[in-house]
Amino acid sequence: MPKTSSKPVKSAVKNGAPACRVALIGFGTVGRAVAKILCESGGNALRLTHICNRNVEKKKQPWVPQDVVWTDDVQAVLNSDVNIVIELIGGLSPAEQIVRGALEAGKSVVTANKQLIARRGPELLQLAASKGCQLEFGASVAGGVPVLPALRTGLSGDRLHGMAGILNGTCNYILSRIETARIPFSEALEEAQARGYAEADASEDLDGGDARAKLAILVLAGLHARVAPEAIRARTIRTVDSVDFDYAAELGCTLRQISRADLKADTLFADVGPCLVARDSPFGRVQRNLNLVLTSGQYGGDMAFLGAGAGGDPTAVAVVSDLMFVAERISAKGGRGVQEELAAPQISPDFETPWYLRFFVRDQPGIVARLAEILAAHRLNIDALLQKPGFDKASLPFVITLEPCRDSLLRPALEKMAGLDFMLRPCLCLPILR
Amino acid sequence: MPKTSSKPVKSAVKNGAPACRVALIGFGTVGRAVAKILCESGGNALRLTHICNRNVEKKKQPWVPQDVVWTDDVQAVLNSDVNIVIELIGGLSPAEQIVRGALEAGKSVVTANKQLIARRGPELLQLAASKGCQLEFGASVAGGVPVLPALRTGLSGDRLHGMAGILNGTCNYILSRIETARIPFSEALEEAQARGYAEADASEDLDGGDARAKLAILVLAGLHARVAPEAIRARTIRTVDSVDFDYAAELGCTLRQISRADLKADTLFADVGPCLVARDSPFGRVQRNLNLVLTSGQYGGDMAFLGAGAGGDPTAVAVVSDLMFVAERISAKGGRGVQEELAAPQISPDFETPWYLRFFVRDQPGIVARLAEILAAHRLNIDALLQKPGFDKASLPFVITLEPCRDSLLRPALEKMAGLDFMLRPCLCLPILR
Repeated sequence: MPKTSSKPVKSAVKNGAPACRVALIGFGTVGRAVAKILCESGGNALRLTHICNRNVEKKKQPWVPQDVVWTDDVQAVLNSDVNIVIELIGGLSPAEQIVRGALEAGKSVVTANKQLIARRGPELLQLAASKGCQLEFGASVAGGVPVLPALRTGLSGDRLHGMAGILNGTCNYILSRIETARIPFSEALEEAQARGYAEADASEDLDGGDARAKLAILVLAGLHARVAPEAIRARTIRTVDSVDFDYAAELGCTLRQISRADLKADTLFADVGPCLVARDSPFGRVQRNLNLVLTSGQYGGDMAFLGAGAGGDPTAVAVVSDLMFVAERISAKGGRGVQEELAAPQISPDFETPWYLRFFVRDQPGIVARLAEILAAHRLNIDALLQKPGFDKASLPFVITLEPCRDSLLRPALEKMAGLDFMLRPCLCLPILR
Repeated sequence: MPKTSSKPVKSAVKNGAPACRVALIGFGTVGRAVAKILCESGGNALRLTHICNRNVEKKKQPWVPQDVVWTDDVQAVLNSDVNIVIELIGGLSPAEQIVRGALEAGKSVVTANKQLIARRGPELLQLAASKGCQLEFGASVAGGVPVLPALRTGLSGDRLHGMAGILNGTCNYILSRIETARIPFSEALEEAQARGYAEADASEDLDGGDARAKLAILVLAGLHARVAPEAIRARTIRTVDSVDFDYAAELGCTLRQISRADLKADTLFADVGPCLVARDSPFGRVQRNLNLVLTSGQYGGDMAFLGAGAGGDPTAVAVVSDLMFVAERISAKGGRGVQEELAAPQISPDFETPWYLRFFVRDQPGIVARLAEILAAHRLNIDALLQKPGFDKASLPFVITLEPCRDSLLRPALEKMAGLDFMLRPCLCLPILR
């Protein structure tokens, strides 16, 4: 362990000010890592006073100081004299009641709860402001990647109009494994599950539910706009085939699950799902379960943040950083105080972009003519036609790329194609990000 | 220009609180960009009241509101009722006197002044704390890349032990141009000068003076340690030859100017200069004049920040972000308040690392034997010997790589080699970063 002279937690509050009393609710992987940092730092600026969890007796750790109260009674914690509650139990219920209860009781809250902030963030921020308390959620997106704090501070002077990211480590692990090893999707998923990068039921990850909740939080914090996660279109990565990496490579691209939002006038264009990205772009280079977030600002241009998106320790750093931020404001008798006006834009998945269409067909004469005819009838321009040799004619994959057009103009053509008798699977239709 | 609904500057202070009065000293490229953002944001949370510059009459802009005072009298600004002074004149004098004067007068300061913070940062922070004022300098390193704000917030909960970066856009432009076009150093420099990426006298950039000032600031903000820029060894990039990119490529590497600091116990290992970095590493991929900063933390692991390192608008975003941070604290009656304890470690360039040694020799029998003999006598292990064909025997470049050893063990061997009669140029000795 590297020895350093920095004593972060010790200097969180003014010298001589009384310590902030901190309660930790939820003692899983992240909770344990947070407690460990707080105990190891040994300062008296932040004092861990309560650890609250179900079956708390089984959770006790020898390295936690004697005077910390272990309890399974949330209400007792909310009734106590703690200044800050850390909520790390996750999910909507009972986390929402706990966070509301803490704020109502005049306690500031630090949470890593993605679903809660994505769904109730605006209301909870308003509640916090009305009570003169703070609510911070830097750990709720991309764990150890300090993008939310950067939005709050270093990028606050810009006017951001776009955010895009690789926000789901499970999808990125699976896609970059297919890319590297050209294994089938199912095999990559099994491998991710075996290594603990994917849950037994990985639907929330694979189908984009996790990423769109995170995107909703980035939109809230970075674009100052309100969007319900369900309003963001999510496309699954299950339909991606290893052959798509072969065709993407022909185009200098690879595939990643991208979450993106662009605010233009009163419309928020937003989408989550697999996209083609240039292999030598920041997105194309993100391997394994790392996270990347790009911000686009009117003045500052593009910024990239890359780091560990999950894991107990990185996430705990985000939680403790928030804690110090909140504690310092309490010490300064600050309080967030600012109730931001949020925009409530229309949400649309209707990006204008070039497209990648991959077909699996039963080979027969006239296929390209039929497809080209449908595209022409919808005024869609073909950019390239790719057909790699060596495939079984009974199930032939080939690709058409289209010049940029709006999503909404493409859909009717795709529906028309779906009815064709030689089509073995639904066409895989992916945006190509430039 | 993208239209967005975000109104950053408007929400910087509490609703209903009086506006913070802001004076801008220095109306060059960055100053103008800062004024533009402040004027365009049109909020009343931050009110630009003074613009101070020499020959101010010639500087006046029609888009600045009528009620802003244009002056060349710094003292009048310091005697006025402004709350925050933005110092953008750069250099040590008179910037230091102005910043001290402002802090003494109880005004908070936002500065982009790299030299000032690198040399006087600890004292000025102490002065600010003693006056209950704030001093922020987020724009002083890597312009638009919000690494300093991230150290202050999102990473504050970690215990950082290492920082490394590509901090000088001029060097990176030149090195990545040699890499791509295999042109001589002198040609790449001329090109950089023609494009405005390098000054006529680029010594400060090429010889590492600029980068080590920035590294000193990163060490102050991230490792909470005090280091004088002059105490950091700086090596020039002028000795890099295009042939070094050929040899580096053989090793899967390229060359970049890297600034790095590692805090181990009471020693700060620090160095600025050209290094071999893996081509597929984050460093190896940084092209043109971008900046990259990597942080290494005990808990959070590695984080990367990539973005525009310079330019009026990105730097102005950093300044305005600091301004909002300061204004919000003034509004909350905060004040930085915290006087951090800084470590004062020993400074050493004595990294243990593998090495790249490139020789230009007059070819004759026995050269390798002589060099190998000297290395063996100093107990240094050769890892590889590389000699690409096709060079003139009268001036033959070849490379020896060494297994990891301390810098200090290598120096005596290099001195010994320098005296050899077949040696045409001093050996270029570069660390290989793994």
